[in-house]
Amino acid sequence: MEKRDQLYEGKAKVLFSTDDENCLIQYFKDDATAFNGVKKGTIADKGVLNNLISARLMFLLETVGIPVHFIKRLNDREQLVRRVEIVPVEVVVRNRVAGSMAKRLGIKEGVVLPRPVVEFYLKSDELDDPLITLDHIDVFNWASHEEVELMIEMAHRVNDVLLGYYANIGIHLVDYKLEFGRLNSDMDTLVLADEISPDSCRLWDMKTGKKLDKDRFRRDLGGVEEAYQEIVDRMGVSE
Amino acid sequence: MEKRDQLYEGKAKVLFSTDDENCLIQYFKDDATAFNGVKKGTIADKGVLNNLISARLMFLLETVGIPVHFIKRLNDREQLVRRVEIVPVEVVVRNRVAGSMAKRLGIKEGVVLPRPVVEFYLKSDELDDPLITLDHIDVFNWASHEEVELMIEMAHRVNDVLLGYYANIGIHLVDYKLEFGRLNSDMDTLVLADEISPDSCRLWDMKTGKKLDKDRFRRDLGGVEEAYQEIVDRMGVSE
Repeated sequence: MEKRDQLYEGKAKVLFSTDDENCLIQYFKDDATAFNGVKKGTIADKGVLNNLISARLMFLLETVGIPVHFIKRLNDREQLVRRVEIVPVEVVVRNRVAGSMAKRLGIKEGVVLPRPVVEFYLKSDELDDPLITLDHIDVFNWASHEEVELMIEMAHRVNDVLLGYYANIGIHLVDYKLEFGRLNSDMDTLVLADEISPDSCRLWDMKTGKKLDKDRFRRDLGGVEEAYQEIVDRMGVSE
Repeated sequence: MEKRDQLYEGKAKVLFSTDDENCLIQYFKDDATAFNGVKKGTIADKGVLNNLISARLMFLLETVGIPVHFIKRLNDREQLVRRVEIVPVEVVVRNRVAGSMAKRLGIKEGVVLPRPVVEFYLKSDELDDPLITLDHIDVFNWASHEEVELMIEMAHRVNDVLLGYYANIGIHLVDYKLEFGRLNSDMDTLVLADEISPDSCRLWDMKTGKKLDKDRFRRDLGGVEEAYQEIVDRMGVSE
């Protein structure tokens, strides 16, 4: 697979074209941002760690039959992925109240939800990724009714896989963000895309409650690199 | 019916008990607030006009079979209503994009929605009435699944009645807020409550686009009293 032009640079990743029009190379940076880019920094080796973590989780999800854009990890910072058109909504799955939900609804962080809650947010830096309803997605055509149904169904399946996986290594999966894409080779096929990493998840140690995710960066808690490394160590993933 | 104690004073109305435990008197004030009470003022005779407007609309809705808390108008500023426990969510129905939807989703005010959209907001001054999803209502028990279904169904019926009614008098019904309550005499029965008035609706003249609602107060457009009076005149309601 030959790496060609840079197509897109986001906050944490860069995408390159390859000699296969349906495949891209996804490069993981160390750059970290929070609060929609207002806070910026770098986390040493974050790109390397997130590449390892996301590759493992995407592999597991594919194994249970959830279609993913991930094909394989190429090296320290790169993975080969299927080219997709990203659906312009972020899918957030919550098992416990934290972050924006705590603030929005005035509920204490940590409260366990009686069942997982799936929320949709519009992908828009300009609008600060607002919460949206299923009706909004429908009337503004951000995704089809079938795609929304599928995203909700996949989100619940992803949640079961990840809840079990993280429980096994002593971690509460509090909440996380998923992105989906339409395959370039077949726009009717929706797959899980982007990444699943401590950048996009809240992960709390089951015994101590210690945060092992990007909240350490957002909230200036220190020990950011160590937290990401701890996840990698518990997952037992490495070259 | 004997008027007894003041039970509650809100931003625009006061509720009094009566000698019937299932009936209250709803008194309409001239006080106007906007932006969750940050902006305050009075609109001369607003209470009198809103009492007339809301009484007529509630009567029409009851006529088509939508249960309402409204019983009858008693005098200039008071109406007799069934006592209810207000469901802690506000139901917003939108036919065109305006106000918070325009801001939230970055869409121009006035855009006609392909179909009416029903949104739910948590009733909370402290949290500034945040937008919520159906899942939120369910997991936090703000209303039962059946109540939510019923509120959506009733909101769509209310919308058809009001759209037709306002079209007949040359007015675009842009959006509005509804509140529902559980009857004190039978908590399983949900009825439309509160009021429907230019305080809670966006009403635009069909020919000129002139705003005939509380946005004249919110946005300092002047002619607030005249706009409310214009609605009363077009509706042809009076003592």
